Amino acid sequence: MRRVAVIPGDGVGQEVMPQALRVLSRLDASRELRLDAFDFGADRWLRTGVGLPEGQVEAFRRDYAAILFGAVGDPRVPGQAHAREILLALRFGLDLYVNFRPCRLRHERLGLLKGRGPRDVDFVIFRENTQGFYTGGGRVEREGSADEVAVAEETHTRAGVERLVRAGFEWARAHGRRRVTLGDKSNAVPAHALWLRTFREVAREYPELEAKHLYVDALAMELVRRPEDFDVIVTTNLFGDILSDLGAALIGGPGLAPSANLNPASTPLFEPVHGSAPDLAGRGVVNPLAMLLTLALMLETLGYAEDARRVERAVDAAIAAGEVTVDLGGTLSTVQATDAVLRHLDVEG
Amino acid sequence: MRRVAVIPGDGVGQEVMPQALRVLSRLDASRELRLDAFDFGADRWLRTGVGLPEGQVEAFRRDYAAILFGAVGDPRVPGQAHAREILLALRFGLDLYVNFRPCRLRHERLGLLKGRGPRDVDFVIFRENTQGFYTGGGRVEREGSADEVAVAEETHTRAGVERLVRAGFEWARAHGRRRVTLGDKSNAVPAHALWLRTFREVAREYPELEAKHLYVDALAMELVRRPEDFDVIVTTNLFGDILSDLGAALIGGPGLAPSANLNPASTPLFEPVHGSAPDLAGRGVVNPLAMLLTLALMLETLGYAEDARRVERAVDAAIAAGEVTVDLGGTLSTVQATDAVLRHLDVEG
Ligand SMILES: CC(C)[C@H](C(=O)O)[C@@H](O)C(=O)O
Ligand SMILES: CC(C)[C@H](C(=O)O)[C@@H](O)C(=O)O
Repeated sequence: MRRVAVIPGDGVGQEVMPQALRVLSRLDASRELRLDAFDFGADRWLRTGVGLPEGQVEAFRRDYAAILFGAVGDPRVPGQAHAREILLALRFGLDLYVNFRPCRLRHERLGLLKGRGPRDVDFVIFRENTQGFYTGGGRVEREGSADEVAVAEETHTRAGVERLVRAGFEWARAHGRRRVTLGDKSNAVPAHALWLRTFREVAREYPELEAKHLYVDALAMELVRRPEDFDVIVTTNLFGDILSDLGAALIGGPGLAPSANLNPASTPLFEPVHGSAPDLAGRGVVNPLAMLLTLALMLETLGYAEDARRVERAVDAAIAAGEVTVDLGGTLSTVQATDAVLRHLDVEG
Repeated sequence: MRRVAVIPGDGVGQEVMPQALRVLSRLDASRELRLDAFDFGADRWLRTGVGLPEGQVEAFRRDYAAILFGAVGDPRVPGQAHAREILLALRFGLDLYVNFRPCRLRHERLGLLKGRGPRDVDFVIFRENTQGFYTGGGRVEREGSADEVAVAEETHTRAGVERLVRAGFEWARAHGRRRVTLGDKSNAVPAHALWLRTFREVAREYPELEAKHLYVDALAMELVRRPEDFDVIVTTNLFGDILSDLGAALIGGPGLAPSANLNPASTPLFEPVHGSAPDLAGRGVVNPLAMLLTLALMLETLGYAEDARRVERAVDAAIAAGEVTVDLGGTLSTVQATDAVLRHLDVEG
């Protein structure tokens, strides 16, 4: 048996995770996967002051094939300290240097852009995931005073940038995608020259691919104006965070955006792009599809490609039938929307 | 006479600036304004190695009522060093702490979002403009080696954040707008706690306004999903850069987005949000409207409100008539599109 760590986390994470497990239980893969639940999140953090127990990261790396994660974020935690001590600690501790965030419009009806259909919105963001704005560098002086100075630091290493950029080009090559676009801010920030230089050097090894460079502001604009111009985007941790939420909007909202945190030499972590959505939590109405598509990403990564396809087909069938939650224009609850996916899973076989 | 410094700058800046001056020459304000042209930009930088001459910032501050700026950015300049030495040096040197970027959809036809018309997209971004990611802090170690480490620093001071946030609330109050939204990333970056804390404190002084907080990723998503939820956005220098280009996309593209760099105690600088667009430059086809709307912002700030309204009405009339450049679905050249605005200026009186 291969072990999968299940971490529902905070807020709506608690509601969507059980739905993923219902779906998983119907799939062939479930016979080979042993699920272990972990209660890491705001409640435990508030009770014990601990995000992840000592040694947990190493245990995950050693003993687990994957981590399935819900969401982190809770208004009761000052500054969301636990988000850094749980989710970011896992990404960094497991050295998951690719945050893979596909943005594919799955149905005409879900798109927000005039005149743009499913064929036009289908790009993948390779977000750097172990450095950049998230390293926790910086300092706060005279906190709370009128003279407070708060400094955030963004750190980039050649090795860190290169492996992320290379992963983007490799994926494009392997998946028959033609264009790789870098988003940085090297016109304003000298440190970003490392990104542009590395990108250009790596691009030379992929002469059959088209390497494009846009400053991140222009990239945000062009994703909305001409999403069809993009296949693969490689970018910093912070910019990937912003652009992938923007991408989620273009495919119909946070209820549809999955992600995978990857390093072929470590234990991958899978999570929906959406957060814990405190406003929505506890009402049983959150859209489970992002979590189900995240499950599909996990299955695919673990080698259960057929199971992954089944989940995706069932999700697409439920969307096509309008059997969806309120955010997508339907009337179903979280559980009912999952019921619909399960029915299509049976029908499609 | 009041003096206005005119800096066309690079690329399409050279093409749109003359159009703004043609329009200005037809307005009452032109009788009170003396225009002085400056050739700061990539050409001069490449020739002399100098962005702004010694003492220039002080001269602008002392002797000028305003600066009208085109664009900066040139592929020949490594790392766009001159952008920092010209545009950022002016913003910082003149202490222009508000970068005011209105995002208003001026015509149904220009919108990119399904089911969203002019009434739905009408928000203003208050981008902090004198600190943050643009302070030039950080360092690069072992540049060009396999061990390169590049660190960017983002600096925020209480005073700097507070004056920007306050400007946003004041503007909302003065203009009858109800909602002020902060975009930060305080869940990932402890330094951003300063923004959230300051925002909440300042908000208390404006009990009649609704203060909302979103992490910048969620904000980018919501601007696309529900632009009608926003009136005023206050945010960091970097996030304002990204969000205002996103906003530009929502109102029809870079050809329509003006901006004002403001400090009531200094010499304001006005520039279109679009850059120098090297791909487009020299072909006579760039859209002049962002520059003309920028002129209108300048006129309004200098107290020529009626002139400003005339320019805006003429621009709106040209858009309504479809007398626009290719980016907006028209067929006109830069000069012809300005001709159209000038005709409407005459007609509207
Ligand atoms: C040219 C560049 C340095 C500038 C910025 O990042 O501020 C531009 O993108 C803008 O928004 O005015
Ligand atoms: C919760 C937060 C720290 C996280 C991030 O910024 O990475 C989230 O927004 C995401 O995109 O996964």
